[in-house]
Amino acid sequence: MPGQMKTTTGPRPEPMRSWVFALPSNRRKMKRRALLIANGELNQTDVQFGMDTCKRGLIIAADGGANQAIEAGIIPDVVIGDMDSIQPQTKELLAAKRWILKPSQEMGDLEKALLFCQEEGIEELTIIGFTGGRLDHALGNLSVLARYDRVFQYRLFSPHAELFFVRDTITLPSNPGTPVSLVPLDKAQGVTTKGLAYPLCSEPLSVGQREGTSNRATGTQFSISIASGLLLVFRGL
Amino acid sequence: MPGQMKTTTGPRPEPMRSWVFALPSNRRKMKRRALLIANGELNQTDVQFGMDTCKRGLIIAADGGANQAIEAGIIPDVVIGDMDSIQPQTKELLAAKRWILKPSQEMGDLEKALLFCQEEGIEELTIIGFTGGRLDHALGNLSVLARYDRVFQYRLFSPHAELFFVRDTITLPSNPGTPVSLVPLDKAQGVTTKGLAYPLCSEPLSVGQREGTSNRATGTQFSISIASGLLLVFRGL
Repeated sequence: MPGQMKTTTGPRPEPMRSWVFALPSNRRKMKRRALLIANGELNQTDVQFGMDTCKRGLIIAADGGANQAIEAGIIPDVVIGDMDSIQPQTKELLAAKRWILKPSQEMGDLEKALLFCQEEGIEELTIIGFTGGRLDHALGNLSVLARYDRVFQYRLFSPHAELFFVRDTITLPSNPGTPVSLVPLDKAQGVTTKGLAYPLCSEPLSVGQREGTSNRATGTQFSISIASGLLLVFRGL
Repeated sequence: MPGQMKTTTGPRPEPMRSWVFALPSNRRKMKRRALLIANGELNQTDVQFGMDTCKRGLIIAADGGANQAIEAGIIPDVVIGDMDSIQPQTKELLAAKRWILKPSQEMGDLEKALLFCQEEGIEELTIIGFTGGRLDHALGNLSVLARYDRVFQYRLFSPHAELFFVRDTITLPSNPGTPVSLVPLDKAQGVTTKGLAYPLCSEPLSVGQREGTSNRATGTQFSISIASGLLLVFRGL
């Protein structure tokens, strides 16, 4: 396991700068983008945010995420997974697309899709449909996403909020009153906030001890820093 | 905060044995039971499990949980919270019931209801409706529930699974094939399982490193032990 962890959580490799600078300035390499649709639930809000964020990117569905995508009016370019949740009409509609069968029992469909994105050199990755449905699946998905949060620049949309993993400091735009929740995924020490109605000043957050849900932004931006641990921030859509 | 934590997480007080034994054996004090309905989502399955588990107990709704209860055909005896989510028809239907207004901003409605149950001497507490809807709310609810898991004997039902907090060892009945998920809420060390298809042998589980979702029971019971941390176990309904 440690070997595998090292591979999947390591820092993103440096871009090949010499190659980039050899191109004319208007042809500089664009960051490769993708929209990934997991097999949770979608609603109109997160679909819209997902599509707006990832224009002209590759659209990837993780297994049953392909059914969700079609229902939401999105046609994926690639379907990846063990294909055990694919509905017949999805198969038919996407027959001409790229299907990548990965029947491994060791790894869930979301992780297979993330590895595929890493192999394809995707840098900016928007993900929708990783929450909703079974709570254990949503929590498992968050753990898998946390494993890759240093590989990709994420935009993570749930039907109610955009989610951010925080390991040090983050500053986010907001409107006064935007709902903000802070959920410790791995005991967060020294949590300090600016621009929230209920401020925290170098305090610990951990499950069963203290949680930071139902806060709200007071102005046009807020910031959160933590000394150690892993914090998940929800910013209401 | 430490003072407050001590109050809410301390061990359950010993029962007054001298009083209990003074009663005839068939009149020994029954454990006080309650069904608590939180303001998440309900479906037919968890409502049925909740009602079956808590027969003849007090029925308590945490704020908007009262709306959910009525939709599911349950009439609560008590409604507790800041009452900001109560629909007019709920107010009307439950006008003759006990309403406990607690407008504190420091504490969510679920925690207010848990404190009420503690004050009422409830020992066996069945809870439904604490998941579904907003994921940050569900995660906040889990944190609050974990704070009181040594105060009550819980039965925690979500629409898809019964949930168990594990701090040491647990053995649960199952059917072969029952879905089981293990989610670390606070880095779980030394996780060992018996009776699961993908066994763990003194291994760590933590968010972003390794998760234990999508396992299943192989026989009529399974057991899980952990050396330290806090594990949430989902057993499929």
